[in-house]
Amino acid sequence: MTLRQPRFAGLVPPVVTPLTADGRIDTASLERLVGFLLEGGVDGLFALGSSSETAYLTEDQRTQVLEVVVKAAAGRVPVIAGCIETTTNRVIERARTARELGADAVVATAPFYTRTHPAEIERHFRQIAAAVDLPLFAYDIPVCVHTKLDTGMLLRLAADGVLAGVKDSSGDDGAFRYLCLGAAELPGFAVLTGHEVVVDAMLLGGADGVVPGLGNVDPHGYRRLADAAAAGDWAAARAEQDRLARLFEIVRAATDTSGTAAGLGGFKTALMLRGIIASNAMSAPMLPLDEQQTAEVRRVLERAGLL
Amino acid sequence: MTLRQPRFAGLVPPVVTPLTADGRIDTASLERLVGFLLEGGVDGLFALGSSSETAYLTEDQRTQVLEVVVKAAAGRVPVIAGCIETTTNRVIERARTARELGADAVVATAPFYTRTHPAEIERHFRQIAAAVDLPLFAYDIPVCVHTKLDTGMLLRLAADGVLAGVKDSSGDDGAFRYLCLGAAELPGFAVLTGHEVVVDAMLLGGADGVVPGLGNVDPHGYRRLADAAAAGDWAAARAEQDRLARLFEIVRAATDTSGTAAGLGGFKTALMLRGIIASNAMSAPMLPLDEQQTAEVRRVLERAGLL
Amino acid sequence: MTLRQPRFAGLVPPVVTPLTADGRIDTASLERLVGFLLEGGVDGLFALGSSSETAYLTEDQRTQVLEVVVKAAAGRVPVIAGCIETTTNRVIERARTARELGADAVVATAPFYTRTHPAEIERHFRQIAAAVDLPLFAYDIPVCVHTKLDTGMLLRLAADGVLAGVKDSSGDDGAFRYLCLGAAELPGFAVLTGHEVVVDAMLLGGADGVVPGLGNVDPHGYRRLADAAAAGDWAAARAEQDRLARLFEIVRAATDTSGTAAGLGGFKTALMLRGIIASNAMSAPMLPLDEQQTAEVRRVLERAGLL
Amino acid sequence: MTLRQPRFAGLVPPVVTPLTADGRIDTASLERLVGFLLEGGVDGLFALGSSSETAYLTEDQRTQVLEVVVKAAAGRVPVIAGCIETTTNRVIERARTARELGADAVVATAPFYTRTHPAEIERHFRQIAAAVDLPLFAYDIPVCVHTKLDTGMLLRLAADGVLAGVKDSSGDDGAFRYLCLGAAELPGFAVLTGHEVVVDAMLLGGADGVVPGLGNVDPHGYRRLADAAAAGDWAAARAEQDRLARLFEIVRAATDTSGTAAGLGGFKTALMLRGIIASNAMSAPMLPLDEQQTAEVRRVLERAGLL
Repeated sequence: MTLRQPRFAGLVPPVVTPLTADGRIDTASLERLVGFLLEGGVDGLFALGSSSETAYLTEDQRTQVLEVVVKAAAGRVPVIAGCIETTTNRVIERARTARELGADAVVATAPFYTRTHPAEIERHFRQIAAAVDLPLFAYDIPVCVHTKLDTGMLLRLAADGVLAGVKDSSGDDGAFRYLCLGAAELPGFAVLTGHEVVVDAMLLGGADGVVPGLGNVDPHGYRRLADAAAAGDWAAARAEQDRLARLFEIVRAATDTSGTAAGLGGFKTALMLRGIIASNAMSAPMLPLDEQQTAEVRRVLERAGLL
Repeated sequence: MTLRQPRFAGLVPPVVTPLTADGRIDTASLERLVGFLLEGGVDGLFALGSSSETAYLTEDQRTQVLEVVVKAAAGRVPVIAGCIETTTNRVIERARTARELGADAVVATAPFYTRTHPAEIERHFRQIAAAVDLPLFAYDIPVCVHTKLDTGMLLRLAADGVLAGVKDSSGDDGAFRYLCLGAAELPGFAVLTGHEVVVDAMLLGGADGVVPGLGNVDPHGYRRLADAAAAGDWAAARAEQDRLARLFEIVRAATDTSGTAAGLGGFKTALMLRGIIASNAMSAPMLPLDEQQTAEVRRVLERAGLL
Repeated sequence: MTLRQPRFAGLVPPVVTPLTADGRIDTASLERLVGFLLEGGVDGLFALGSSSETAYLTEDQRTQVLEVVVKAAAGRVPVIAGCIETTTNRVIERARTARELGADAVVATAPFYTRTHPAEIERHFRQIAAAVDLPLFAYDIPVCVHTKLDTGMLLRLAADGVLAGVKDSSGDDGAFRYLCLGAAELPGFAVLTGHEVVVDAMLLGGADGVVPGLGNVDPHGYRRLADAAAAGDWAAARAEQDRLARLFEIVRAATDTSGTAAGLGGFKTALMLRGIIASNAMSAPMLPLDEQQTAEVRRVLERAGLL
Repeated sequence: MTLRQPRFAGLVPPVVTPLTADGRIDTASLERLVGFLLEGGVDGLFALGSSSETAYLTEDQRTQVLEVVVKAAAGRVPVIAGCIETTTNRVIERARTARELGADAVVATAPFYTRTHPAEIERHFRQIAAAVDLPLFAYDIPVCVHTKLDTGMLLRLAADGVLAGVKDSSGDDGAFRYLCLGAAELPGFAVLTGHEVVVDAMLLGGADGVVPGLGNVDPHGYRRLADAAAAGDWAAARAEQDRLARLFEIVRAATDTSGTAAGLGGFKTALMLRGIIASNAMSAPMLPLDEQQTAEVRRVLERAGLL
């Protein structure tokens, strides 16, 4: 196997966006969170992804978030910026702003809201890459975009130098395996998984890195997991993953709400309880976890030894 | 039955957005198109909906389109402005701009891209209505948003004065019937259908109006259809609808592309052939209809007596 | 327009299957139900469709049901028999049995459970038609089969003499309209709709007949509706349909259960309350409506003047 | 961790069903195939699953297949029999037949074709288990059944002794991980994966066994993979899995057909080329792989060293 050396790899958590109770970006909390992640040993930061509530932020708020993250990272690790927009020209506009703000790479999905087509998706990525002078990641997240990116297309775009990598949140572990197999021939192409409860398995299968939302809450755990895997100690990797999978139960504290509100709400509540961010406030129309749900998150954190 | 008198009713086509070959808004063509629709007898204009390629336009382009449509309409018919954004705060921001630009009502979907929940959707519409001083329409378009709006919720929001109407592109004719039945008790609430090939049936079932994409191409036909239905001449309404359904075949000229590119591409090509707009250019990453596909559209138009 | 004369048309309710409390076919109730439907003026009977709980019946029970229905119909109206099986050979086997039992036509869906393909679906219908000496209907019910039958394919099969008709429960009113437009050239081809709350609209659009589950409960109402439509009295048709749509609320008496249990459970409970069948028992693993839900059905029936 | 000792575990391939060109069961080939699998070191056999074309077989053919497999297995490994039927009573009827024919366990899905509900699904499994005196597996295969089995329900049924195991073909690797975590407390409960291209990852995550369709073609490879994993040699397991993932390309020889026809057609063609079965015939309405597609399968087999 070729030695793989993608620039963007390892542990790259998607940074959640702390908010004040009245819905503004809580920049002090965001700075503390970035510091916590860097201290936890992350290899990069993914800002303005789904876990950052990017779909809930106005243009000005997106700009503000990216400014804070870039500044707080201070060049110690690369910052990958989500440019989650419905179509090509909107992505390009946003990606140019991200570049000006100091992002090291940008991430785009296939077109969404509108009905699309494989040939249009491929042109979409090619046109973005041609228009933006930064490495481009494809974000495969069918639960949001309602399209699965084709493995053959991704590898073709990688071979053509259009894509620097893929952030896979597709849940299609078979397709992901073929992406890893294909990437073996593409030394600089990064295959990152967003599946935070099976990171050991994904790394065994060939992933170059992981983008775990839960990594906001316990970056040290994911650091140990990634290190164990890199060392070939798969029993240790599995044990750490099992521990993290149990910690992930914080996303089930809230019921009868959206998966987004329960999941990100659980992360934010845990970060609040750990003292990293000031509030578990959520963007409208979501509600933050209530007292009882917060108590349940606390219980899970205590069981995991994180409080 | 209560006499229904919704302010926004009748024939309200979603105005397509003419583009130049290099992707700018073709304002002269857009003005001509609005004039053509007004001359065709429309009762209102829906700008920045899905048929306007709104998902493909940058913020500045959206502003430009709405300015042109409002100015060209010149108060002769109301202008309803789509505010197609992923979540609440983004919709509110866009809706305030629409109000400043002179829109008479705004249209929003449920949250999209992000996973959502019925209670969040209801809060979403309530928060938008509270923040924006214009009548609010809910846009039910599961093919884009991947959520079906609940009939009970829509009627509750109508009764509470949150919604002025619904633009239904759900394709769920059973749910639509119950919406019409419920609207019978809500005199000012407008139930509009986007199903351009079954308008006669929808009007028979109680729809207050229709938002036909094909109405760009043949507003006079939809005017005759609406008038026949209003006069109770259902045989004439059906015959006109059957004619328009055959005309709708222009959306099948392009194959092996997205439904959006084929559908809007067909409309634009027909408008170009009819001399209303200058070009059938489409937003990236879509392609315009090619020569052979254009010839097929021409054939359908000729058969329909529109050339 | 060619005069359309399909043999199987008009009002063809899907006959529900009465059960005893211990899960056997209640043949006496089934006979009474068929008598009630004939007295109500139906033009045909559809046995062993989805509304007959056919997916819940063993082979022997399916045979028993068809025997009873054929015998009770006694040649007064044709009996169409569902042959709801996963794939071609299983349908053929079942269809041959239906023929032996005296069915006048058979109904098959596309393959289900297994993944399939348009070319396979077309072969499927051609092979069934070639193997079974009875008119064949295609049953388009994506909510069960998870495939939508293509309009072009259906018209091609009709033109080739493979299909005698379509029973459409797709909910795609646009596609249905094109089916009706295409059928105008195929005098013997029957286009039947299963959408019981929009029958007026479907008949206006060109449907040849209707297969309303609710027709079990109120065949006389659907008779009046069909007669009004045939007479061109669309206002009367709409009023009758609106009344029946309100009656259809009986399917919402049960909540927190499957749509099947709520819908068929509502029909059976109404038939029990009207004295036509002895019990509202449902097939395992469904539960019958409980006392409170039964009271709700009674309330709807009383409001509709059916008790 | 408790020592896990499920009775049905390890390598349990789903046995494909060889057919003659005229569609009969090729019993001689089926016997040879079972012999080949036993020689390859399998731990059990899964007959009449999706890979056995069970949805395409008549009742008599299903009986015939199970008879042949049980007889050929001759008690050397347990035989698990699929009872793939739409609803409870039909499954029970089929499961009793399977028991009479000598099956050691039965497998059922949630109800399909009909719309269902979590409470009905749970009752469904409880009623089957109560009626059939054999260990019961739940088959989680949303691509066929269009329902995902809930992890909490599966673990509850396991704890209650209703389920002996789960055969997971859901593709939801996160849910699968929680199933494995829960199974750690249930020593006799078997968690089997059907995901043949990520078996190493699934075993690392805690799976008790694997049901690989591709195991028909190369049982020896899966034996080596399972043995390496059991020995903790994850590098060897991954290398073997990568090799098998490349072999799995035989399912892509056929294009423009159903996934079922391409996948099972690829397996059967490979078995024919390897001399195990006589023909690559497929059930109607599927077509077998043609000459060119067969040559492509041959090429993949040669590259894998299997010819």
